[in-house]
Amino acid sequence: MIKSIAILTGGGDCPGLNAVIRGVVRAAILKRGWQVVGILNGFDGLIDGPQTVPLDLASVRGILQRGGTILGTSNRGNPFRYPVQQKGTTELLDVSQRVVDNFRKTGADALVVVGGDGTLKIARRLNDMGVPVVGVPKTIDNDLCGTDVTFGYNTAVGIVTEALDRLHTTAESHHRAIVVEVMGRDAGWIALESGIAGSADVILLPEIPFHIDHVCDHIGKRRENGRRFHIVVVAEGAVPIGGHKVVQISADQNCGMERLGGIGQQVANAIQARQGIETRTVVLGHLQRGGTPSSFDRILGSRFGVKAVELIEKGYFGMMVALSGREVVVAEIDMAVESLNLVNPQGSLVHTAEALGIMVGR
Amino acid sequence: MIKSIAILTGGGDCPGLNAVIRGVVRAAILKRGWQVVGILNGFDGLIDGPQTVPLDLASVRGILQRGGTILGTSNRGNPFRYPVQQKGTTELLDVSQRVVDNFRKTGADALVVVGGDGTLKIARRLNDMGVPVVGVPKTIDNDLCGTDVTFGYNTAVGIVTEALDRLHTTAESHHRAIVVEVMGRDAGWIALESGIAGSADVILLPEIPFHIDHVCDHIGKRRENGRRFHIVVVAEGAVPIGGHKVVQISADQNCGMERLGGIGQQVANAIQARQGIETRTVVLGHLQRGGTPSSFDRILGSRFGVKAVELIEKGYFGMMVALSGREVVVAEIDMAVESLNLVNPQGSLVHTAEALGIMVGR
Amino acid sequence: MIKSIAILTGGGDCPGLNAVIRGVVRAAILKRGWQVVGILNGFDGLIDGPQTVPLDLASVRGILQRGGTILGTSNRGNPFRYPVQQKGTTELLDVSQRVVDNFRKTGADALVVVGGDGTLKIARRLNDMGVPVVGVPKTIDNDLCGTDVTFGYNTAVGIVTEALDRLHTTAESHHRAIVVEVMGRDAGWIALESGIAGSADVILLPEIPFHIDHVCDHIGKRRENGRRFHIVVVAEGAVPIGGHKVVQISADQNCGMERLGGIGQQVANAIQARQGIETRTVVLGHLQRGGTPSSFDRILGSRFGVKAVELIEKGYFGMMVALSGREVVVAEIDMAVESLNLVNPQGSLVHTAEALGIMVGR
Amino acid sequence: MIKSIAILTGGGDCPGLNAVIRGVVRAAILKRGWQVVGILNGFDGLIDGPQTVPLDLASVRGILQRGGTILGTSNRGNPFRYPVQQKGTTELLDVSQRVVDNFRKTGADALVVVGGDGTLKIARRLNDMGVPVVGVPKTIDNDLCGTDVTFGYNTAVGIVTEALDRLHTTAESHHRAIVVEVMGRDAGWIALESGIAGSADVILLPEIPFHIDHVCDHIGKRRENGRRFHIVVVAEGAVPIGGHKVVQISADQNCGMERLGGIGQQVANAIQARQGIETRTVVLGHLQRGGTPSSFDRILGSRFGVKAVELIEKGYFGMMVALSGREVVVAEIDMAVESLNLVNPQGSLVHTAEALGIMVGR
Repeated sequence: MIKSIAILTGGGDCPGLNAVIRGVVRAAILKRGWQVVGILNGFDGLIDGPQTVPLDLASVRGILQRGGTILGTSNRGNPFRYPVQQKGTTELLDVSQRVVDNFRKTGADALVVVGGDGTLKIARRLNDMGVPVVGVPKTIDNDLCGTDVTFGYNTAVGIVTEALDRLHTTAESHHRAIVVEVMGRDAGWIALESGIAGSADVILLPEIPFHIDHVCDHIGKRRENGRRFHIVVVAEGAVPIGGHKVVQISADQNCGMERLGGIGQQVANAIQARQGIETRTVVLGHLQRGGTPSSFDRILGSRFGVKAVELIEKGYFGMMVALSGREVVVAEIDMAVESLNLVNPQGSLVHTAEALGIMVGR
Repeated sequence: MIKSIAILTGGGDCPGLNAVIRGVVRAAILKRGWQVVGILNGFDGLIDGPQTVPLDLASVRGILQRGGTILGTSNRGNPFRYPVQQKGTTELLDVSQRVVDNFRKTGADALVVVGGDGTLKIARRLNDMGVPVVGVPKTIDNDLCGTDVTFGYNTAVGIVTEALDRLHTTAESHHRAIVVEVMGRDAGWIALESGIAGSADVILLPEIPFHIDHVCDHIGKRRENGRRFHIVVVAEGAVPIGGHKVVQISADQNCGMERLGGIGQQVANAIQARQGIETRTVVLGHLQRGGTPSSFDRILGSRFGVKAVELIEKGYFGMMVALSGREVVVAEIDMAVESLNLVNPQGSLVHTAEALGIMVGR
Repeated sequence: MIKSIAILTGGGDCPGLNAVIRGVVRAAILKRGWQVVGILNGFDGLIDGPQTVPLDLASVRGILQRGGTILGTSNRGNPFRYPVQQKGTTELLDVSQRVVDNFRKTGADALVVVGGDGTLKIARRLNDMGVPVVGVPKTIDNDLCGTDVTFGYNTAVGIVTEALDRLHTTAESHHRAIVVEVMGRDAGWIALESGIAGSADVILLPEIPFHIDHVCDHIGKRRENGRRFHIVVVAEGAVPIGGHKVVQISADQNCGMERLGGIGQQVANAIQARQGIETRTVVLGHLQRGGTPSSFDRILGSRFGVKAVELIEKGYFGMMVALSGREVVVAEIDMAVESLNLVNPQGSLVHTAEALGIMVGR
Repeated sequence: MIKSIAILTGGGDCPGLNAVIRGVVRAAILKRGWQVVGILNGFDGLIDGPQTVPLDLASVRGILQRGGTILGTSNRGNPFRYPVQQKGTTELLDVSQRVVDNFRKTGADALVVVGGDGTLKIARRLNDMGVPVVGVPKTIDNDLCGTDVTFGYNTAVGIVTEALDRLHTTAESHHRAIVVEVMGRDAGWIALESGIAGSADVILLPEIPFHIDHVCDHIGKRRENGRRFHIVVVAEGAVPIGGHKVVQISADQNCGMERLGGIGQQVANAIQARQGIETRTVVLGHLQRGGTPSSFDRILGSRFGVKAVELIEKGYFGMMVALSGREVVVAEIDMAVESLNLVNPQGSLVHTAEALGIMVGR
């Protein structure tokens, strides 16, 4: 018999997290009269602590349209391999029992864990250790299996598309090529969908290795056909055939600027060097995570939050919520943690991009 | 053996129409070398005429991010019951054979018809009369069956949600109730989804008759609980129990302002009169149709356009494209024209809204 | 020697009000160590009460980007003619002494009053009664003299312009005329500037009476010249020559829908009736007030707030802040309350609109 | 007696350029019946060529809301020091006479030159060589004297402010510092105004040298005061005291990534290294130039275009248009080219930022 539940958010922030929190709080309090406690800073809040904040209706007022998470998220993360300073060196210790004990101290009967595959893996192991857990899948770059899509992704694609719209006018005025590096270490969904929506000429994904020569040749052909500007969208995890040495910049020369756009900059350098076209690089980075969630993500986040409370009520622990077609359903956490949702190089979305005349990798 | 195809857009304009046109043109020309001709102003362009414009790659450049349709749409519409002036009176004549003849004059081997249920009904009958037709379903308020969703709807929900965000700050500052009337004559999807995303307090839909007393009581209770402002979202087709006479304004007194928000204004009048709360009405009207399509609608429109060309290539005439889960598939036009996609009053989306504390009709 | 100050916001809400409040609070606390108390709901909070809330740094965190005012604004208003129920009837009484007494109770040494001409008039009279007042001018439709411009106006023009962008695509697709009614009872700045920025074809202002025949003729000529759509922007206070009877709708038949757009609807009816062009009306209403302030308004509001604190420090009571060129300066409240800032019919902005081919009234 | 005029746009693209072009074309054709010819790609179009395009009303339809310039802009630039390949080496030659001759070939009686100080310098010299020139000042980072402000700047500040809004939610969720590098090689206006509007904690400008120790200490103090996140806005031209070696990264190690944010990255590295706060860098780069112009910039650009035509009519050659207070006036080109409009370190805008608690350089 549930009286009180706890919720935490883990991993990178994502538009829609607050919609989930709000959905959980309102569904728990309004119809069921449960109490809700928020765990601060992801699992960190159950390692040192517990660090908690009571969540009532007032605490979730006005957060639906705010990005990020009011609970904060963890920066150190995994309780099973937790970095601890010991005589100068950093050891990775298993502090999971402390997490279980601290959860007990919160007095909550169940825990909602919102996070990506890493966070959900932890959630499932904690469930096996006796913490009644319900998962809510989160991934901004849509690389999670087990759900059609999750919140945050739609907002991110919208932000990148808006950026591509802006860059078109500049590229057109200056007859330039512009290379835009976007999120996507393993999965190229953001690059592919925003590339289609933003009318890119070339899209480079982790799933489809590309040859830099072909990219440069393609741009060259476009110019011969009188096209005066060129937009290339590159996922941060895109892999050139022959590895990352598409130009003579070694990793260490790269000043640890991966976050500032290794691969994007390298593709740009190659285009400028080989085609003599003035080329610029834009790295969207954290711009893609922030800001007001789209209506789609607010609705999906709210539905996930409400459904998570239902799962708790029904005692479906060790499981997670998911979107299937138009319905929000229960699903196995295993579905989300055992494999990645990658772009299918032969799939219809890649096919659509190519039918539109976009070069997709290769 | 296809050499040339034609395309027309019918019914109300909708963000994403240009993405469909562009997708058809590029998929037809780039890979297949077909020619494409655009029919102007919907079926009107096949009644007087044909009025056509050749569509090459240049003519669809830069239209992906533009709302509306570069081909224009019909204002008089149905060739089977076409209004014709005869000795002062207007007769409804069947001019469908003229449409067939004019289509032949275009020299096209197939016709892509983009439109809602009315337009698609016509398309199917023309197919039976020998015009090889492929349909692309269009509906801004999501009332079409046969496809999970179509382009335009996501943009409309986003526009309404943004409007609700804005109105919240005004309502909050003035301690007012604000009634927002949105699109949805038969189906309340826009009201329901934007109401959830925009944090509405009451949502009124065509599918769930409401009693004005209950609405006023609900607002009254909110005030007693210390809530200082109230947002009510009303679909234009929402039906009060006891018909449209929720306040003493007869239809004719209403100055033919239905389009300017009969039901919204009436609900507002009732709240102000019975609860003594200063209440304002906002009618979004055509604002919901216009402007830059969202990334979601640009992608879906592009996929529909590309798929329509495939259907022609495969000879699937008398059929239409549709979204099913994550895939764009072939579907029967009958699916779209024989019934409406209505909100299920017992469905999970209404349930979610109620779990969040929103009053949904009744 | 100032130790504590109070602030209130009066009149209609306006994007940037929170920037002023935040500016006052931060400038007073950070450098000067003053205390700040917020008066709730404009002067109402000094009539019943005082109703106050302490304002520290935490209370103004995150409000810079929020529309409206966290202090609320008055709905009944003028303490010198305050509506009071007495034996069933409503009397207008002078309760200004109560305001002075309640201000004293707050313990504040000075009062910042943010509001339009009505609110500032009251502020000045209270100053004469011994309340040390500093004014911050506020007007969303830019009708205040004494300052080049105030916060809120830039945001409003931006919202209307965005709406006009959206409506263009609809009007173009359907070959319609669309009449957009915008704020501006006395001054037509919003209609004029958004009309120029949003590429309107006709702009109707309070300052330049228009003849409906000329408007209809102008639209007719445009159609003869092959223009397929027409956008008319009408300020709510625009006056047709011959008064409000441009069509046979009497004021009372109009269902008290002035707020829902009397004049806009009437102009639309006339165009449709006389030119046979399908015409739609959109009334933006409260959409123009709400939402995130533009960067311009956030900066101006912040500068006004900081400057208001300086005026208090220097003892410039009975005066207000103002924008002059690029500088924020001190100004007489009389400047703002004694006359309206109207569009000059012979001025360069009207001239610019006409040079661009826009019909401006007449 | 003017019959025909030419127009070109030079230098970096800027939102509002198309508004100027449209204003010139409409003002010249509608009232005066002049012809207008567009010069392509800035002065390049008068060096090779002339490369021109006739501009009628149709050619400027729908461009008001589009960023960039439909005429393109020059990439090589200065006709007085023009890079020409000669036997393998690049020589800088004076080809200005070719420009004069090619202008004559266009048959135009006057030339409107839209550009920044470099472009306007050239314009004035060409005027001295007998080309009747009128200038329109353009600068996206507001570093031009002779006009209160020009088009493009308001849009750029808006884009940066929106980016800061987004980054706040991420920084808050992760308890991070985020360093945002923005445009401004010589003048810090964009950093200063967007920093105020976007609620930055530290703003670094070219005009006010900063000591990296003070920046790190300031962030450290904020953390001690319980502030969990920190936003630093850095103009690309900001200069640390002791030069660019704030961390051990030499210019050449920096992989020629200045454009990708040398100074921003260096400040971020220092904060992370010295305060142990996870810090991220975002370089907005070309995102700041592109996209739909704000209403302010559309209006100002339109006014400048209309005024430029008036100057030609009145024979005010060798001069330019400018904004002064609320009026668009004539001004000397010398005003714009002889000195830069820099932020005044003792000025009221810096003072406002500091009063709000923002650290501005030093």
